[in-house]
Amino acid sequence: MNILITAGGTSEKIDDVRYITNHSTGGLGKKIAESFAQDPTTTITYLHGKEALLPQGDNITFSSITSVNDLLQQMTSLLSTQTFTAVIHSMAVSDYQLNSVSDQTDLSQKLAALLQQNPALDLSDGEALAQAIDSHLSDLLAPKEQVEKKISSKSANLILALGASAKVIHIIKKLQPETILVGFKLLVDVTEEHLLAVAYETLVKNQGDFVLANDLHDVGPVNHRGLLIDSKQNVEIFTTKGEIAEGIKEAITRKLKGATQ
Amino acid sequence: MNILITAGGTSEKIDDVRYITNHSTGGLGKKIAESFAQDPTTTITYLHGKEALLPQGDNITFSSITSVNDLLQQMTSLLSTQTFTAVIHSMAVSDYQLNSVSDQTDLSQKLAALLQQNPALDLSDGEALAQAIDSHLSDLLAPKEQVEKKISSKSANLILALGASAKVIHIIKKLQPETILVGFKLLVDVTEEHLLAVAYETLVKNQGDFVLANDLHDVGPVNHRGLLIDSKQNVEIFTTKGEIAEGIKEAITRKLKGATQ
Repeated sequence: MNILITAGGTSEKIDDVRYITNHSTGGLGKKIAESFAQDPTTTITYLHGKEALLPQGDNITFSSITSVNDLLQQMTSLLSTQTFTAVIHSMAVSDYQLNSVSDQTDLSQKLAALLQQNPALDLSDGEALAQAIDSHLSDLLAPKEQVEKKISSKSANLILALGASAKVIHIIKKLQPETILVGFKLLVDVTEEHLLAVAYETLVKNQGDFVLANDLHDVGPVNHRGLLIDSKQNVEIFTTKGEIAEGIKEAITRKLKGATQ
Repeated sequence: MNILITAGGTSEKIDDVRYITNHSTGGLGKKIAESFAQDPTTTITYLHGKEALLPQGDNITFSSITSVNDLLQQMTSLLSTQTFTAVIHSMAVSDYQLNSVSDQTDLSQKLAALLQQNPALDLSDGEALAQAIDSHLSDLLAPKEQVEKKISSKSANLILALGASAKVIHIIKKLQPETILVGFKLLVDVTEEHLLAVAYETLVKNQGDFVLANDLHDVGPVNHRGLLIDSKQNVEIFTTKGEIAEGIKEAITRKLKGATQ
């Protein structure tokens, strides 16, 4: 088997010093990699965020990324050059990328100037005014060519504009329709019913084979409640990272046997 | 001697999952702490960011913080209950805190509604319009009572509003005028002349005794160019974290001897 595992978190750079990131430690991805690594005939590629915990194993190849765009490039390159039995995408990928950083007062002046340039604009038409503001803000907050070195602390108020990042998981089945795709869905403080509904929605949207659904409140360094849902909405429940890792390995093995029978 | 050392970076929470932070490892603070810890009669408090590297030593007490407000509270408490010979403030403290997170389209609608409520507003007066927008934005983007659990990824564009954070260094000499204060200034890709000028400005503003000035491009895990400037604008140059740590300890020791002579 040749397995691709993503783990840890992505980081979006604000300037050379600051960045936006998430609390993902890569602890679960590490456990999953170590579980697969027990079989010396299995090869594993571990694609991880810079701060992620790293698994041990002679049959593991490491590759690190920072931003979502980084991940997209490396994932595309890996899927274009190797065939993977399964892709286990446990990385916490930011839904947003940073488009720009502006000073609020400066932004207000630019927005005022743009609104003034529109001779047809009528202050009494609230909807048209809102649309004009939204459209001008989109222009003013669009990605800049140059990233700041270090933002000066002289501005009283800063505006960080975030736009949707690339949906990396979408490309997996497009590039390798035959791979077994395991996605992950993390929500915070929701009912198990809602969590499973959202996880299943994700599975369908990304043509996944399994999704591991979890709630941040049930995630610890060792204990970790995880619900593995498949395309027929069967659900397996695990309560530690070790159980989740073994459970995912077994589910993939079962699916492979089913496919060859 | 009783020494307070701050190290690592602060983190500003966006929601339960995401946060804004910086690249500070605490590597320099760790070296400084270990340098002071060699003398068993010295006691050290190491106030550090969650991810910071930790020094070893039986005479070191640890305390951790996440946000700037956290740091302000713990620093105030420490300075109100103990007398420190010196405070070595190497922590990378965020200049900004997160005030709020908004959906751009939603924000545009609210801004349009507020602009409409102003009957005297005249689109031809660009300056007044800019001021009205800036003032309404300040209201709309002010800190919310409740922090999000996890921001939904459904918004196409998010606006993160950042405001100035508390200047923690200001309180040090206010609470303990007799302590020896060592500040730090990190800039990116500037001339040494500019770096020293900005560092000296910081020293004067915070009534510091020394400032260690450094440029991100000269900071590595071991090699680390640092310029220690004092209140008479004398400058000492160091080229590794070890040298900086020893240099700061010696500068403090010299200053103490001078004071008792």
